[in-house]
Amino acid sequence: MKELEEGICSLDGVEANGVRGEDYGLALIRCSGKTVGFFTKNKVQAAPVKFTSQLIKENKRLDNVLVNSGCANAFTGQKGYEDAVWMSSLLDGKTGVCSTGIIGKRVDKAWIEKNANYLKDNLLSDKKGSKNAADAIRTTDSFIKEIGVQIGDVKVAGIAKGSGMIEPDMGTMLCFLYTNADFSQNFLKRCLRKAMDKSFNMIVVDGDTSTNDSVLLTSTESLEKCDKKNFEEALDLVSEKLAKMIAKDGEGSTKLIEVTTKEGRNNREAKSASKEVLRSPLVKTMFYGESSNLGRIVSALGNSEAFIDEEKLEIMIQDTKVIEGGRIVAEDSKIKELVSDDEIHVEINLKLGVSEATVWGCDLSPRYVKINVGYS
Amino acid sequence: MKELEEGICSLDGVEANGVRGEDYGLALIRCSGKTVGFFTKNKVQAAPVKFTSQLIKENKRLDNVLVNSGCANAFTGQKGYEDAVWMSSLLDGKTGVCSTGIIGKRVDKAWIEKNANYLKDNLLSDKKGSKNAADAIRTTDSFIKEIGVQIGDVKVAGIAKGSGMIEPDMGTMLCFLYTNADFSQNFLKRCLRKAMDKSFNMIVVDGDTSTNDSVLLTSTESLEKCDKKNFEEALDLVSEKLAKMIAKDGEGSTKLIEVTTKEGRNNREAKSASKEVLRSPLVKTMFYGESSNLGRIVSALGNSEAFIDEEKLEIMIQDTKVIEGGRIVAEDSKIKELVSDDEIHVEINLKLGVSEATVWGCDLSPRYVKINVGYS
Repeated sequence: MKELEEGICSLDGVEANGVRGEDYGLALIRCSGKTVGFFTKNKVQAAPVKFTSQLIKENKRLDNVLVNSGCANAFTGQKGYEDAVWMSSLLDGKTGVCSTGIIGKRVDKAWIEKNANYLKDNLLSDKKGSKNAADAIRTTDSFIKEIGVQIGDVKVAGIAKGSGMIEPDMGTMLCFLYTNADFSQNFLKRCLRKAMDKSFNMIVVDGDTSTNDSVLLTSTESLEKCDKKNFEEALDLVSEKLAKMIAKDGEGSTKLIEVTTKEGRNNREAKSASKEVLRSPLVKTMFYGESSNLGRIVSALGNSEAFIDEEKLEIMIQDTKVIEGGRIVAEDSKIKELVSDDEIHVEINLKLGVSEATVWGCDLSPRYVKINVGYS
Repeated sequence: MKELEEGICSLDGVEANGVRGEDYGLALIRCSGKTVGFFTKNKVQAAPVKFTSQLIKENKRLDNVLVNSGCANAFTGQKGYEDAVWMSSLLDGKTGVCSTGIIGKRVDKAWIEKNANYLKDNLLSDKKGSKNAADAIRTTDSFIKEIGVQIGDVKVAGIAKGSGMIEPDMGTMLCFLYTNADFSQNFLKRCLRKAMDKSFNMIVVDGDTSTNDSVLLTSTESLEKCDKKNFEEALDLVSEKLAKMIAKDGEGSTKLIEVTTKEGRNNREAKSASKEVLRSPLVKTMFYGESSNLGRIVSALGNSEAFIDEEKLEIMIQDTKVIEGGRIVAEDSKIKELVSDDEIHVEINLKLGVSEATVWGCDLSPRYVKINVGYS
């Protein structure tokens, strides 16, 4: 496995660039090829989600994606839909449109037109192109999210944005993945769904789902014969790395928290146990405050769909056993030390079956409130 | 309808008192009579919940309740259960036990024994007794919660504690209700369930459920012939008032927010719509920050179980229409003015059916994090 230095532009056939203004950002990625995608489950879908999901359904491929940040173009009715169609028409051919930002406002067409024209004429096929695009799609993200890997001949690279509203099953996030591997539409879609179920569908920031979530995977179709296992491994890896970056960059967060539930009765219960722990504001503030209040984890578990046998329950934090046989077995001072790291791994062992699920999330700091008060 | 000035001690046959120490509080309420109760749905149940629910099931009546704050006596195994039995044995007869506070710690038996003995000898049957008891059961509650009303001959009075972990369906809350009305066990239970479904089960603070939630209703059995309607009305009123006090006193909150969803397709969807709006941290920070970001309400609605027709949706804040026909119809400055009050009423009209549900909650301030970091 080799890391690709130039982000999505590491792939021949992918060109990108982006610009950021005071309130808005715009990215253009050019890559013509077979495309599959997954979109938000929120019942209020943004106009670009409606437009782009339909476009992919009809054509099975895209030539470009045009992505704006700062305005979600959601809850904007027929006029908002027309704006999405218009944005697509600014480029040639089959252009997908994605938006992220404030809901209920129309996009600034003059700003978008001017910058789309600039980007069209200034696409880059190097590191800078990928970085500029990743930067332009940020809203409250504090760092850009890009990664590329090569396994054998197979390359997979992606950029993403995320940060609030993460859960359940994606959440204000956009992700654009590219590969050179040429597989059938069905195989690509199956692999993407599997990768998402271990990555983007396993992150929790604040328990909200957004109107605009989209994950797209486009193939440059240049590597005709390639190893399926290498492709799946590369796609899984890129998806997991981007998902962890999104969880770590949860609004106002100071820590990345990984919760693995082991030996659950079934997958649904294992996933629910991990998610409920990371969704609980009381657990999240405990990690932020580096306190020893482990009862909050137990209470969150009891609040999940998982069956819990208190007496069997075992919990490890950073590989140290803190709960065993229905009681807290570590000293308060030791627990405080364990939760003081920047990246924390919690392992919950339900001792009831064989199912396992890992979920990523973050702590809750007063800055979460400050960011979301300011973002309007 | 007349308000009763002396809280739960307004009822003949109810005596109470409470003490608060540095870390703990203890309340004793004496009232011998028919008792019904509802308890937490969290799968991790605190020892006093297991003990008291069983006691009520067996005897159908209580003589006293002994309530400590500061230690939840939850996730304490067999020894914790024995502690609950021991607490009950400190009093004569059938004594229910309730606890609230930190999970995973054993109760301080010496402190409880000393203060239970003091309270036994110093029960009061006036205003002060009710107030002291309501004060002793507080944890992070910023004010005491008590109310009593008389309708016709029927009296109903109660004290409660709540504040974090409120939702779904009760949440770190304890409530002790008393009435003079003598009805059958079944009728009392049915009325209590109905009252709870319109009050304690309709409040949302942070989306967590606790290990210790308990609502008890005891009748002094002194009013044999009384009007059923008056009783139900009084019980509903007391429950709703206490529920609203709990919502208003949500940890770190600055505003009480009431969300009514009208014209839903069915009750489940109407309730889910109201709850999801009040559960969303993004909506809660919007109200705290008094911002105009109404798209967050729409997104939260889309995240609920309710079917949403964007074009039909109407939303009023403080009786002013802000959303109509799939768009935001009020100016930003007007919306900011509407959300600047201390008590805010949001009315969502789905225009799809006839069902309605009202839920109470609060905003989310940086103080929520501070409180929960400090509470360990």
